[in-house]
Amino acid sequence: MVKVAVCLSGCGVFDGTEIHESVITLLALDRAGAEVVCCAPNVDQMHVINHQHGLVMEDESRNVMVESARIARGPVVDIEELKPADFDALILPGGFGAAKNLCDFASEGADAVGHPAVMELINDCLEQGKPLGLMCIAPVVAAVATRKSPARLELTIGTDIDTNAGLEAMGAQPRPHAVDEIHVDVERKVVTTPAYMLAESISEAATGIEKLVDKVLELCA
Amino acid sequence: MVKVAVCLSGCGVFDGTEIHESVITLLALDRAGAEVVCCAPNVDQMHVINHQHGLVMEDESRNVMVESARIARGPVVDIEELKPADFDALILPGGFGAAKNLCDFASEGADAVGHPAVMELINDCLEQGKPLGLMCIAPVVAAVATRKSPARLELTIGTDIDTNAGLEAMGAQPRPHAVDEIHVDVERKVVTTPAYMLAESISEAATGIEKLVDKVLELCA
Repeated sequence: MVKVAVCLSGCGVFDGTEIHESVITLLALDRAGAEVVCCAPNVDQMHVINHQHGLVMEDESRNVMVESARIARGPVVDIEELKPADFDALILPGGFGAAKNLCDFASEGADAVGHPAVMELINDCLEQGKPLGLMCIAPVVAAVATRKSPARLELTIGTDIDTNAGLEAMGAQPRPHAVDEIHVDVERKVVTTPAYMLAESISEAATGIEKLVDKVLELCA
Repeated sequence: MVKVAVCLSGCGVFDGTEIHESVITLLALDRAGAEVVCCAPNVDQMHVINHQHGLVMEDESRNVMVESARIARGPVVDIEELKPADFDALILPGGFGAAKNLCDFASEGADAVGHPAVMELINDCLEQGKPLGLMCIAPVVAAVATRKSPARLELTIGTDIDTNAGLEAMGAQPRPHAVDEIHVDVERKVVTTPAYMLAESISEAATGIEKLVDKVLELCA
């Protein structure tokens, strides 16, 4: 049975993991017969956003791992305790949490730094040929992780000009795609799809995510 | 285009809406071409549960509507402002939020009382022949709403003996079913499925939920 690690970054599109993307991923993996281990960094979120009106809740603080457990329906693994030997492929759903809590691309752009254990796990996967699946804004996390390496990952985040400029500045190769498409960096085994970077509905996001999951599992074979 | 109201109760299985059930519902509705309006009561949650270790976070307080907006990816409608004329069918995903925030069945059992606007909306649907879809523990909310009426709803929450006794004590008619089945109260147009009351995986929950959504939309025709 293929084992896939899903790295979460909180619970909610504006300050954590994109919930729809995560659940669609978990469902597609389960329907394909894959075993899933959810993980997250044990750090405070960059901030907490009230999703009803979009403003920062100044007095609130939430932990990324604790909030991620809402999506997992129970304990997630502290990413510092997860080793590449524990899984066959790694998938990162999107949501601002990827660009705020797994790295700080949302505020720092191409100067972003990433959570050390997340960076290490991504680089371990690339070195060991374990497939990576990244959706929505999450490709920037891999671009941050590989900035100092000769790897020039081919990644799609859709068509957003500023984000693609950021990817390029970090040495990655942006590949514009439509919402229902995936991009496969064949050599590096990295699969990406725009999801809610472009999706205007949950079913639009789901089409690309289901293709991504299929391809990641195919690359594990 | 059929318009379906989805009543949320927070964000997370132990103190709010069951996230997987909600997202599977939203995806099935969107793929079927239905329009969705998410709503929730503007009240504080009964409590906040740390989903990583399962304990109450004594110092925290969260609003049901604000947390529900995480699942909706933006503003949800205050259920007090929603009228039956605004939609064709009403669906309640499960999660403890249904039994803690929409009513207090989780602590009070068959003596539970419900949020007034939720109770009113459910009874309006029954009177006007608008289909109701209820999954997981959410059938208890309809049982609370109809306790004083002659309606003896046929409902399934799966096979849990205590919950079925509670349903019966409130005047409803429990109908045991397997996780991949739905029960249809044809006369009342009420569709129920056990979902995570029985599901041991997300795909098990999805099978029943997708059947429920199909049947609710069929009953709208």
